Amino acid sequence: MKVAIIGKGNLGSHLHNALQPTCDMQWYGREFPTTIDADIVIVSVSDDATLKVISDVHAPFVVHTAGAVAMANLERTGVFYPLFSFTKEAVVQWKDIPFLLECSREEDMPVLEEITRLIGARAFHITSEQRTKLHAAAVMVNNFTNHLYTLAKEHCQHYDLPFEVLHAIMRQGPDKAIALGPKTAQTGPARRGDDRTIKHHLEQIQDPTTKALYELLSENIKKRYEL
Amino acid sequence: MKVAIIGKGNLGSHLHNALQPTCDMQWYGREFPTTIDADIVIVSVSDDATLKVISDVHAPFVVHTAGAVAMANLERTGVFYPLFSFTKEAVVQWKDIPFLLECSREEDMPVLEEITRLIGARAFHITSEQRTKLHAAAVMVNNFTNHLYTLAKEHCQHYDLPFEVLHAIMRQGPDKAIALGPKTAQTGPARRGDDRTIKHHLEQIQDPTTKALYELLSENIKKRYEL
Repeated sequence: MKVAIIGKGNLGSHLHNALQPTCDMQWYGREFPTTIDADIVIVSVSDDATLKVISDVHAPFVVHTAGAVAMANLERTGVFYPLFSFTKEAVVQWKDIPFLLECSREEDMPVLEEITRLIGARAFHITSEQRTKLHAAAVMVNNFTNHLYTLAKEHCQHYDLPFEVLHAIMRQGPDKAIALGPKTAQTGPARRGDDRTIKHHLEQIQDPTTKALYELLSENIKKRYEL
Repeated sequence: MKVAIIGKGNLGSHLHNALQPTCDMQWYGREFPTTIDADIVIVSVSDDATLKVISDVHAPFVVHTAGAVAMANLERTGVFYPLFSFTKEAVVQWKDIPFLLECSREEDMPVLEEITRLIGARAFHITSEQRTKLHAAAVMVNNFTNHLYTLAKEHCQHYDLPFEVLHAIMRQGPDKAIALGPKTAQTGPARRGDDRTIKHHLEQIQDPTTKALYELLSENIKKRYEL
């Protein structure tokens, strides 16, 4: 397959490396020809620049990798979005990474699926509308959980306690939730209805915001499990 | 070293297996002799039964493994608490697991450290008072994050979207937070001050509780990063 990638950033580089062994590649940075001869052009630039680049390039089939950007309004276009947070140095385990695929013409879907297969990743057919809904869920499981780590770390620092003793259960959390389902995996004082421990913890938490969140989340868990 | 374990549950079994190769072991379930000849007796029973078993057994040095139970009021006693959630089938990676150690006599600490070393785990000196503070932080990084997974899964189910596309970033979350520190690792619309996306997400979230949490956590993140 003839593949062109526009974008030499983090994701662009990872995609280029992954497709290099099996595809006839073209790879462009800020400078790219306006007309590109390829089966697919993958635009992997910043969110803000995405639609501009797509409108500048002329090619049979142009897709982008920006999760927060809706599919372009073109005859043959699509979205090729890996739902993952890429870092430059880390080795990417492609087999674990889901690609959310969308295209304006159903006939182009096999191209997206084939590329996903060549990378060794997993393909999911997701419309732009579904993608924004998944994005809200991604914020919950990623951004909000990370914020709880921040609050917990600050709590530890306040009492001069080593945050690293929590690393093991932090790492274990997603694995357990995925293996058992999060509802079954739920544990803790709120799940048990252990109000004494909750009260005790609230007395120890100094930061008012953290305290409010502790209280709301505990109430929420209790309600959900009808305690 | 002569080690006795009381308790044939999940943790008791894992500890027994780990110490078996290097220690002179005794292992008891519900029936145990009132007098035990060992360098250390590890009581690994349910939280509720812990203090009762400790008061029933006569041995030079008796410790327990219950994170939520304060150290017993005895002359030579202690706490030997692995901060981790053990499951029967899973293979335990001891080297990642922190043991929170405490004892009434400073002279007994080397025994607890030696056992931790024999298991291949990491030792931390933590008093009962510090332990309850760490417990509050553990609730945040483990129980509350798991609850967010539950809410995100329900959100996906409501829209008939595959929750599994989120598995990869769920698994990545703790690793990134540990590698970079959670404050640096924070991303997402609230971190960027992207109010349009937040508003959009809030419109899509059906469950009122999830909506309230989304709002509070977003506000909280924005405030923390002075947006």
